[in-house]
Amino acid sequence: MSTDPQRLLARLLARPANHPELIVQALTHRSAGPDNNERLEFLGDALLGLVIAEELLERLPAADEGELSRRRAALVNQDALAAMARGLQLGDYLRLGAGELRTGGHTRDSILADAFEALLGAIYLDQGFAVVRELVLNLYAEALAEAASSLMRKDAKTRLQEWLQARRRGLPEYDVLGVSGEQHAQQFTVCCRLTDSEASAIGEGSSRRRAEQQAAETLLALLGGADSSASPA
Amino acid sequence: MSTDPQRLLARLLARPANHPELIVQALTHRSAGPDNNERLEFLGDALLGLVIAEELLERLPAADEGELSRRRAALVNQDALAAMARGLQLGDYLRLGAGELRTGGHTRDSILADAFEALLGAIYLDQGFAVVRELVLNLYAEALAEAASSLMRKDAKTRLQEWLQARRRGLPEYDVLGVSGEQHAQQFTVCCRLTDSEASAIGEGSSRRRAEQQAAETLLALLGGADSSASPA
Repeated sequence: MSTDPQRLLARLLARPANHPELIVQALTHRSAGPDNNERLEFLGDALLGLVIAEELLERLPAADEGELSRRRAALVNQDALAAMARGLQLGDYLRLGAGELRTGGHTRDSILADAFEALLGAIYLDQGFAVVRELVLNLYAEALAEAASSLMRKDAKTRLQEWLQARRRGLPEYDVLGVSGEQHAQQFTVCCRLTDSEASAIGEGSSRRRAEQQAAETLLALLGGADSSASPA
Repeated sequence: MSTDPQRLLARLLARPANHPELIVQALTHRSAGPDNNERLEFLGDALLGLVIAEELLERLPAADEGELSRRRAALVNQDALAAMARGLQLGDYLRLGAGELRTGGHTRDSILADAFEALLGAIYLDQGFAVVRELVLNLYAEALAEAASSLMRKDAKTRLQEWLQARRRGLPEYDVLGVSGEQHAQQFTVCCRLTDSEASAIGEGSSRRRAEQQAAETLLALLGGADSSASPA
């Protein structure tokens, strides 16, 4: 039933496994016997946690510990892991007991997710940290880029507020300086200014909200926080 | 107040930090400012989790995932981390805000534990995985040896039962073959045998329980499971 694991590895890694039996074990569900993937899954889970943590830390320089934790959890929950496993067609390589085979265990999320983590654990033991780290970053390239860009899509007022709170500074104030144009085509001008310094910026937009966002974006850029790079490492 | 972090590093590592500011940040509590150790703690926590996971996997070849998780949790809980921090006199190097300083923050478990993890995260970024892994294994040498030996102290009947259950084999039966000696100096002879094979072993002891343990130990050795090395990787 199950395909030769070496074919799977050849797609993932530059060189064959030093210990092919580790790869077989990673693909063996507990229903198929005692030499199964539960211990390797424990290792792979920890490995994945570290690699994703480091990458999020680098890509999200302004995110606090809570945000980093939430984003990592979203990348390594059972759904995400099972999707990764399906991308690798891991189901074709699984070794399952007769009962699990009969009831479609090779398509079950929990079994696929566990096997994916176990495979990472096996590759770590077989080829070392640098190799498995690169593999994880390749597999997660799209998801990590999405995590970083979704943070950038956070609105500017929120980012400005977070930037200031991280530095224990007062919240900004927004004042409408003027409204021009006809009722259905108004133009708002808003000033965003800090209460504890001279810094301020002007924004314009077709609604008060848009003008405020524009002002906050400009002020963030003035403060050096537009790309969040002025934040804690 | 706080001592130069380079003195701390000199005690821990072969070469000085490439990025001393990371080490300073690891020792900076959030009460002291925005460039504090919360993000590095997130990284160090993941790093420590992986290093301890791998080491437990190797040292406890018969432990299942649940047992590995419990043992790791015991090694990385707040008490254990704070004890590690105290061993390094980390409190002397902490940077705290005025309020925390006044209320003795440099002796608080949670602050010490977080700083210890953050320090590991900083060393990982500064000197790489291999260096920080070796440091963790040195710091945890005693605790890891204790974890391994406490498992060996598990009684032989339990270990035999776990060995058999992992292989989905029947539980052993214990029969008293004989009792000799006076009431206060009895000697028991017990036979431990498997129900699904011919394997059996005899044990003797001053109580029925001791004789059973002796028989289980001998049978485990016969089965190749005495050092648990016949178990899943």
